[in-house]
Amino acid sequence: MVKINGLIAATFATFHADGSLNLGGIPPLVEKLIEDGLKGVFICGTNGEGPNLTVEERMAVAEAYVATAKGRLFVFVHVGHTSIAECRKLAAHAEKIGADAISAVAAFYFKPTNVANLVDSMVQIATAAPKTPFYYYHIPALTGVGMDMVEFLRIGEEKIANLAGIKYTAATIHEYQACLNFKGGKFDVLFGYDELLLPALAVGAKGAVGSTYNFAAPLYLRVMELFEAGHLHEAQQLQLLLVSMIREMVKFSPIPAQKAIMEMIGMDLGPSRLPLMSLSQHDKELLQTRLEAIGFFDTLKQIKPVNDRV
Amino acid sequence: MVKINGLIAATFATFHADGSLNLGGIPPLVEKLIEDGLKGVFICGTNGEGPNLTVEERMAVAEAYVATAKGRLFVFVHVGHTSIAECRKLAAHAEKIGADAISAVAAFYFKPTNVANLVDSMVQIATAAPKTPFYYYHIPALTGVGMDMVEFLRIGEEKIANLAGIKYTAATIHEYQACLNFKGGKFDVLFGYDELLLPALAVGAKGAVGSTYNFAAPLYLRVMELFEAGHLHEAQQLQLLLVSMIREMVKFSPIPAQKAIMEMIGMDLGPSRLPLMSLSQHDKELLQTRLEAIGFFDTLKQIKPVNDRV
Amino acid sequence: MVKINGLIAATFATFHADGSLNLGGIPPLVEKLIEDGLKGVFICGTNGEGPNLTVEERMAVAEAYVATAKGRLFVFVHVGHTSIAECRKLAAHAEKIGADAISAVAAFYFKPTNVANLVDSMVQIATAAPKTPFYYYHIPALTGVGMDMVEFLRIGEEKIANLAGIKYTAATIHEYQACLNFKGGKFDVLFGYDELLLPALAVGAKGAVGSTYNFAAPLYLRVMELFEAGHLHEAQQLQLLLVSMIREMVKFSPIPAQKAIMEMIGMDLGPSRLPLMSLSQHDKELLQTRLEAIGFFDTLKQIKPVNDRV
Amino acid sequence: MVKINGLIAATFATFHADGSLNLGGIPPLVEKLIEDGLKGVFICGTNGEGPNLTVEERMAVAEAYVATAKGRLFVFVHVGHTSIAECRKLAAHAEKIGADAISAVAAFYFKPTNVANLVDSMVQIATAAPKTPFYYYHIPALTGVGMDMVEFLRIGEEKIANLAGIKYTAATIHEYQACLNFKGGKFDVLFGYDELLLPALAVGAKGAVGSTYNFAAPLYLRVMELFEAGHLHEAQQLQLLLVSMIREMVKFSPIPAQKAIMEMIGMDLGPSRLPLMSLSQHDKELLQTRLEAIGFFDTLKQIKPVNDRV
Repeated sequence: MVKINGLIAATFATFHADGSLNLGGIPPLVEKLIEDGLKGVFICGTNGEGPNLTVEERMAVAEAYVATAKGRLFVFVHVGHTSIAECRKLAAHAEKIGADAISAVAAFYFKPTNVANLVDSMVQIATAAPKTPFYYYHIPALTGVGMDMVEFLRIGEEKIANLAGIKYTAATIHEYQACLNFKGGKFDVLFGYDELLLPALAVGAKGAVGSTYNFAAPLYLRVMELFEAGHLHEAQQLQLLLVSMIREMVKFSPIPAQKAIMEMIGMDLGPSRLPLMSLSQHDKELLQTRLEAIGFFDTLKQIKPVNDRV
Repeated sequence: MVKINGLIAATFATFHADGSLNLGGIPPLVEKLIEDGLKGVFICGTNGEGPNLTVEERMAVAEAYVATAKGRLFVFVHVGHTSIAECRKLAAHAEKIGADAISAVAAFYFKPTNVANLVDSMVQIATAAPKTPFYYYHIPALTGVGMDMVEFLRIGEEKIANLAGIKYTAATIHEYQACLNFKGGKFDVLFGYDELLLPALAVGAKGAVGSTYNFAAPLYLRVMELFEAGHLHEAQQLQLLLVSMIREMVKFSPIPAQKAIMEMIGMDLGPSRLPLMSLSQHDKELLQTRLEAIGFFDTLKQIKPVNDRV
Repeated sequence: MVKINGLIAATFATFHADGSLNLGGIPPLVEKLIEDGLKGVFICGTNGEGPNLTVEERMAVAEAYVATAKGRLFVFVHVGHTSIAECRKLAAHAEKIGADAISAVAAFYFKPTNVANLVDSMVQIATAAPKTPFYYYHIPALTGVGMDMVEFLRIGEEKIANLAGIKYTAATIHEYQACLNFKGGKFDVLFGYDELLLPALAVGAKGAVGSTYNFAAPLYLRVMELFEAGHLHEAQQLQLLLVSMIREMVKFSPIPAQKAIMEMIGMDLGPSRLPLMSLSQHDKELLQTRLEAIGFFDTLKQIKPVNDRV
Repeated sequence: MVKINGLIAATFATFHADGSLNLGGIPPLVEKLIEDGLKGVFICGTNGEGPNLTVEERMAVAEAYVATAKGRLFVFVHVGHTSIAECRKLAAHAEKIGADAISAVAAFYFKPTNVANLVDSMVQIATAAPKTPFYYYHIPALTGVGMDMVEFLRIGEEKIANLAGIKYTAATIHEYQACLNFKGGKFDVLFGYDELLLPALAVGAKGAVGSTYNFAAPLYLRVMELFEAGHLHEAQQLQLLLVSMIREMVKFSPIPAQKAIMEMIGMDLGPSRLPLMSLSQHDKELLQTRLEAIGFFDTLKQIKPVNDRV
C-alpha cells in the first residue's frame, strides 16, 4: 500500500478578480510546489475551497492539476460533499482522469451518528473509484463530526476495499499516534495540522498535508530534517517560528490570509468566494508587517528549497 | 408583499427502494397535502433531503412539484448549498420554472462570520432569481449559523431587493416575535418549529412551515382554529398531543421516522439516503405502537381535513 | 402541593461599593417587590450571583430575605453548588431558617451524565431539607446540563420525596408544556425565560421566575391580565416592548445591565463581583438612552403596580 | 523563578466507603508517589475532586498533603472555585500552611468574557497568597473557558505579581509551545495532557502534571529518559502503550476509572462523590481485563521506579 513520505500541499482554488475560476493559475503553482520539494497536492479540499465550487468546477480543477502534476506530484482529489451522489460523480471522474487518490470529509449537513454509519457513507463514495486509494478526511472542527478514528480504521478496514488511510486534521496527536500504529502501521495516516508538525513527528508522522505548505514548505522540510538528524533544539526554534506565523495568520480569516501571503511572495491566486472574504488592503499590510516583524520572510529566503540544494 | 396565512409542508424527497429518485411519488403527496388544507410546499429543504440530492436531482424535484402543485399550492424551492455558485444555478432554475418563492440556508462548511457577511452571501443567491420572493432559511441547529435575525432583516432590507421574509426554525420565539414586528410587520416570517406552533400563534404567527404538517396538518389547523376562536384549553390539549407525537418521533432519526409515519398512514415515500438511515422494521413497529398509545392516529382520524368539512 | 400563581423575582445580590455584602440593601428591595405585586423571591440563584458568594454569605443573604419577606413573599433559596456537600449545608440551613422552598442547579464542573445520575445527585441535596419543597433549576445555557425534563420528573417523582417542581429556564416551550402536563399537572413548573412569558402563557404557564421581574413586574403582570382577558393584541404589544427591552439589555453583560436598570429606577444595589463586570458610566448612559428610545420607562410609569390599583 | 523538571501527580481525594473524607489515605499515597519518582503533587484539582469538596474539606486535604509531603514533594494547592471570595480563603490558607504553589481554574458558572477579565479575576485570587507562586490552570474542556494563553501571559505578566506559569491541559501543543517560549521561557508552563506527553517533550516540555502519573509515573519517566537519550522508537512504543491504556480508561468515567486502577495496583482510595459514580464491580473487571490484554500491568512491573534503580 502507498505511504507518503514528505509533505503534501493542500492547494488553493485560483480565481479571476471577478470570482470566476482561473485554471491558468494552477500550472505556476504546481511548478512552485515541485520546486519547493512537495511530494503531492491535495486539491478541492478545505483550503482549495472545494465546498465553494460547483461540481463542474471541481472536475475542471481536478483535470488541470492532474494534467500539470501527474507523475511529478501525487494528486489527491477531495470529493467530499453533503450529497453522496455528488461525491460519487466526483470520485468516478477523479479515477477516470487518473488521480492518485481520492479523499472525502464526512457529510456535514446531515451528520453521521456513529462510526458504522460514517463508514457506510464512505463505502458509497469509495466504491465509485474502486481502483483509487481512498483517504478519509477527518476535520471535526469544520464538519462537526468527531468520531474515534481508530474505530473508523477498525470498521473501515473490513468494509472499504480501497481504504488507504486518513488525512488527520485535529490536535489530538495521541489518537493520531494510535491510528499510525493500527495493525502495525497498516494505513497511511497523514497529519494535517501544520502548527503541530514537530510534535507529530515525535510520535512517528512521516507524511503531512497542510495549507501553509503552499508557501512555507522549505521551512517545514528543514524541521523534518533537523528532527531526523537529532537537532531537536533547532527544530523547535524553526517550528516555533512557524507557530508564530500561523498565530498571526489566523487573526484574519485563514484561507484569504494565506492567499494574501501567497501574493506577498509573488503569486497572486485571486480572491476567495463568499462567505469567505479576501483581506482588505489594510489587513494585508498589517499581516505583512507582523510576519516581517517575526522574521518569517527573512527565514524563508535563507532556507533554500530542498531541490535547490547541491 | 406576499404573506402566507396557513401551513406549508416541508415535503419529503421520494425515492425508489434502491435510493434513486422517484418523481412518481410527488403527485399523490401533493394531492394529499391539498386535501389536508395546506397552503404551500417547501421543497428540497432539510426534510426534503435537499443536501442529499445532486443539483440535477434538485431541479427535477422542483420541476415535478411546480408542475403538479402550481396554482394550487404556493411552492418554495430551497436552493441552499455550500457553494453559492450552485445556489445561483438552482435559484435561476426555480425562477425559470415558475416557483413562487426561493429560500436558502446560510453556507454551512465555511460559515458566515457576521450578519453583514451573511447578507452579502444571500444577495448573491437572491439576485439569481430577481423576480422571485426570497426567504432566508434560519436553522442554526443544522447550519451552526445563529445570527441575530432582526439584524438580518435590518441589513437585508437594504441589500436584498427581493427579500420577502424568513423561514424561522428555532425555539427563540422572542426573536421571532421581534422579526414579525420589524417595521410594522413588513416581512413574512414563517414559523418553522412545529412543536411550538401554539406558543408562536400567541405572539402573532400566521404562517408556518414544518415537516410534520405532511401528515398531521389537520390537527395543527384545528389548533389554529381553536386558538383563533378563544378555545385555549382545547388548543393546548391538541398541541400537547402533537408535542407528545414529536417527542416519540425524535427518539428515532427524525426524517426517516417521519417517512415511517407517512407509510403508517398509507403513503410509502421510499427510504432515505445516507448518512440518514431508514428505520428498521422493529423500530417502525415500536414507533407505531407508541404513537397508538398516545392516541395520535385515532385523533388524526377524528379530525377531518379542513377541506372536507361542510 | 404548592403551586405558585404569579411572578417570582430572581433577586440580586446587594453589595457595597468595595464588593462586600450589603445586607442593608435587601429590605428596600423586598418592599419594592411586594409593592410591585410579586408573589415570591428566588434568592442566591444566577441573578443573585449565588455562585459568586461564599457559603457563609449565601446563608446570610438567605437569612436577610427570610427575615424581611417571610409571610409576605414565598422565599426560594437556591442551594446549588459544584459540591453536593456544600449544597446539603445550604439546604439544611434554608430549612432551619424557614425558607418556603429550595432549588438547585445540576452540578456544573463534573456534570451528570444521564437523568438517573442527575436525579441521584438531587436526592442527596433534597434530603438535607426533607420538609421543604424542592425545585430542580433547569438552566442548560449556564450549566451545560441539558437533560430531558419530562424524564427528570418521571424518575425524580419516585426518588425525591419532596420534589415540588422545576424552575424551567430554557426556550424549549414544548418540553415545558409536556412538563406542565406531566401526570395531569402534578408538579409546579415555573417558567424562567422572561422574554418568552406570553408564549409560555399560551401553553398554560401560571407561575414564572425571572430576573427582569425585579424592575418590570407591573408590565409582565399586565401581559398576564391582558392575555387572561382575551386581549391578545395588547398583550403582544406589551410583551414586544419587554422583548425589545431585553434585546437592548443583553447587548451588555446581562446581570450588571439589570443592576444598572435598577439604579435608573432609583435603587442602587452596588456592583457585581468578578468575573462579572459592572457597566461603565458610558454604557449605563447608552443603555438608558436606548431604553428611553423604545419607551420602556414611560410605559413603566404608566402602568401602575397591581397593588396600587383601586 | 521556580521551574519544575519532572512529573507532578494530580492526586486523588481519598474517601471512606460512605463518602466522607479519609485523610488517612493520603500518607501512603504520598509515599508511593515519592517512591515512584514524582517531583510534586497537585491537590484538590479536577482529579482530586476539588469541586466536590467543601471549603473546609479542601483545607483539611491541603493540610494533610503539606504535612506529609513538605520538603519531599512540591505541593500545588488548587484553589479554583466559582466564587473568588472562596478562592481567596483557600489561597490565604494554602500560603499559611506552607504550600509551594497555588493554582486556579477560571470561574466556570459565570465565565470570563475575555483575557483581561480572566486576568483581573486571577489577580484577586493571587493577591490572597502574595508570597506563593501562582499557576493559572487552563482546562477548557471542563471550564468552557478557552482563552489564548499567550495573551494570558502577556497581560498576566503585568498584573499578577506572583504569576509563575500555567498548568496547561489542552491538546493544542502549538499554543503550549508558544507559551513555553514566551519571553525566552520566562514562565513555568506545565503540560497537563498525559497521553500527549511525548509530543509535548518534542516541543520542549520539561514538567508535566497529570492524573495517570499517580499509577504509571515510572513508565512516563522512562518515556522521558528514552526521548532524552535519543531512543525515539522505544519512547514511541512506550507512549503508545500509555495512549492505549488511557483509551481503555476513558471508555469509563475517567476519575472513578483511575481510582479503580489504583485499587488494581493495591491502593484503595475509596469511592467518588456524585455526580461522579464509582465503577461497578463488572466494569472494574472489564477494565482490568482490557488493561491486562494490552500488557499494561506487565510493563508496569518490568519498569522499575526511578528511585529503585541502582
